[in-house]
Amino acid sequence: MANPTLLILAGDGIGPEVMNEVTRIIDWFGEKRDLKFDVEHDLVGGAAYDAHGTPLHDDTMARALEADAVLLGAVGGPKYDDLDFSLKPERGLLRLRKEMDLFSNLRPAQCFDALADFSSLKPELVAGLDIMIVRELTSGVYFGEPRGIFEEGNERVGVNTQRYTESEIDRVARSAFELARKRNNKVCSMEKANVMESGILWREVVQKVHDEDYPDVELSHMYADNGAMQLVRAPKQFDVIVTDNLFGDILSDCAAMLTGSLGMLPSASLGAPNADGRPKAMYEPVHGSAPDITGQGKANPIACILSFAMALRYSFDHGDEATRLEKAVEKVLADGARTADLMGPEGGTPISTTEMGDVILAAL
Amino acid sequence: MANPTLLILAGDGIGPEVMNEVTRIIDWFGEKRDLKFDVEHDLVGGAAYDAHGTPLHDDTMARALEADAVLLGAVGGPKYDDLDFSLKPERGLLRLRKEMDLFSNLRPAQCFDALADFSSLKPELVAGLDIMIVRELTSGVYFGEPRGIFEEGNERVGVNTQRYTESEIDRVARSAFELARKRNNKVCSMEKANVMESGILWREVVQKVHDEDYPDVELSHMYADNGAMQLVRAPKQFDVIVTDNLFGDILSDCAAMLTGSLGMLPSASLGAPNADGRPKAMYEPVHGSAPDITGQGKANPIACILSFAMALRYSFDHGDEATRLEKAVEKVLADGARTADLMGPEGGTPISTTEMGDVILAAL
Ligand SMILES: CC(C)[C@H](C(=O)O)[C@@H](O)C(=O)O
Ligand SMILES: CC(C)[C@H](C(=O)O)[C@@H](O)C(=O)O
Repeated sequence: MANPTLLILAGDGIGPEVMNEVTRIIDWFGEKRDLKFDVEHDLVGGAAYDAHGTPLHDDTMARALEADAVLLGAVGGPKYDDLDFSLKPERGLLRLRKEMDLFSNLRPAQCFDALADFSSLKPELVAGLDIMIVRELTSGVYFGEPRGIFEEGNERVGVNTQRYTESEIDRVARSAFELARKRNNKVCSMEKANVMESGILWREVVQKVHDEDYPDVELSHMYADNGAMQLVRAPKQFDVIVTDNLFGDILSDCAAMLTGSLGMLPSASLGAPNADGRPKAMYEPVHGSAPDITGQGKANPIACILSFAMALRYSFDHGDEATRLEKAVEKVLADGARTADLMGPEGGTPISTTEMGDVILAAL
Repeated sequence: MANPTLLILAGDGIGPEVMNEVTRIIDWFGEKRDLKFDVEHDLVGGAAYDAHGTPLHDDTMARALEADAVLLGAVGGPKYDDLDFSLKPERGLLRLRKEMDLFSNLRPAQCFDALADFSSLKPELVAGLDIMIVRELTSGVYFGEPRGIFEEGNERVGVNTQRYTESEIDRVARSAFELARKRNNKVCSMEKANVMESGILWREVVQKVHDEDYPDVELSHMYADNGAMQLVRAPKQFDVIVTDNLFGDILSDCAAMLTGSLGMLPSASLGAPNADGRPKAMYEPVHGSAPDITGQGKANPIACILSFAMALRYSFDHGDEATRLEKAVEKVLADGARTADLMGPEGGTPISTTEMGDVILAAL
């Protein structure tokens, strides 16, 4: 049988640096665990724009659709700030999400014991925190038409359209309920049904999917503004949160920051299963391209490494190997390995991106 | 000269209880400071629905447009959950905002020294916190057309429209810059210009208003997801934040919760100045109708009382008297007066809504 294929799109800023550590980890699994992948590399974001004048070349798009999983680093940087909207690095990322139809974006907000003190929240509120945010990723106001800046009377008007069909809501709700069954069996759905009709439909469909096919899962509904409050007040009340593209963008960043472990958080974006049962999938760290520290060997590769762990779990059915990798990360943190972003007020000597890769490889 | 008029819409849940304390404060200002108001009362939300079958009667709308200021308690409750969208209590509130054209919603997120421990954030991150969020309140996805749930092919689709005209952005930006000049002269504008064209126009217009008329104010731009992160990470970096209706809804609730003083936070919603120079205005606490504690004398009236202080400042040009009232509130808190919502883990005996009114009156 052919090896599964991984397409690596390292992207911009610290993307290539952190991805470099991931490729060493991938090699380790090939050598030591006989888990071999065919790894290819290509460009996305500003790097693709620099080479081809577009943030995602059609050939790259085609390769992404072919690959068994895509690993993405990060996109964007100040160099591209003045580019036209359609050429911005982000458009490459959004095109991948849309054309791969990656409707279910899994964003764990997890607090690592060794890092509970890094949270801006009181440690007792976040110690042991483990939330999974399921964000709809291919629809809503990110993609709805009409959109644009139009002339109207004597002035311009900026327009975007929030749009959700029943089937779009149905499928992401299912993925949230499935996940909840493997966790603590609780889903909280967030929208603004008190002011938006799209929220009314969202709530109704989530409830219907629940009642028909997941009555065993505990379901609650919350307005998204209250959701933001509750995340800050008492985040441990949540298990799985399911929400739309825009609310998910904001709430998952809020939740990520609560953990104090931003440089540590991975994500998975999953689509429908292929013929082989494997979902279309892209894995990426939650952090951005961090132009301020690019090229200095300061970046924390853990979020990107844990994104590969998610790939092992969700694309390649190797939950055991994913856990092995996650445990190795926990161990080096417990042993005190810290990149610059993890330096507390008490100081210490940070290790470099590569050194963090080294100790994780050693722990494996 | 006739006394200025105040229309009180106490609304639902704890609204009438907390408003009761406000009317005692209003009376005090009439008697002791010769600041007399003609006070009228009317219904809004569920209370209006119960009486008239609509969450806001046309007569009430007309009175609100006539009044020099409106004080609102809270709307909503589980009793009204199954009402049709157009009859829900919230529609009464949204109609007031829209028809009074209250485009600038001021939401201070302030941490009271005596209550810094109530925050879920570490005390040093929130002690002395004082942010002003300026939320656009009459446009965006709350009001944009088309909206609704439509049939499309074999399924339904929920649609809302995010829409901002240049002039809508211009006027709310001005109100933010004006406020910043009276504070620490810093404005941070938040949108998602990286994915939404309406955000691109927002950013451009805010920048233009700044460059043309407020070059002395320090202006920065931030994506709203990063804004949520930064609020949680280091809220004291902000002075004034200006953002749209939906982002403002979520970010202001997030910021409010950071302070740990949710039962304490007032808001002002301001429109354009009338002929007499007074803006159309409505004042309301940030907290909701709290059906779980309604009728038990447990509600904290401070947010509603501080909303009246904002009325003194923004509608009646009595900043001095507003400060007097705010100082009285600070004093009773420093003296240890606590309603049930302000009970810490160390316990103590909470005072009732009316008792809180009593001690504030005494402190005045
Ligand atoms: C980079 C940007 C387009 C993206 C988004 O808004 O979805 C990012 O914030 C994210 O959450 O992955
Ligand atoms: C009650 C609701 C309609 C309202 C809103 O969404 O604006 C509330 O959340 C607020 O922030 O004032």
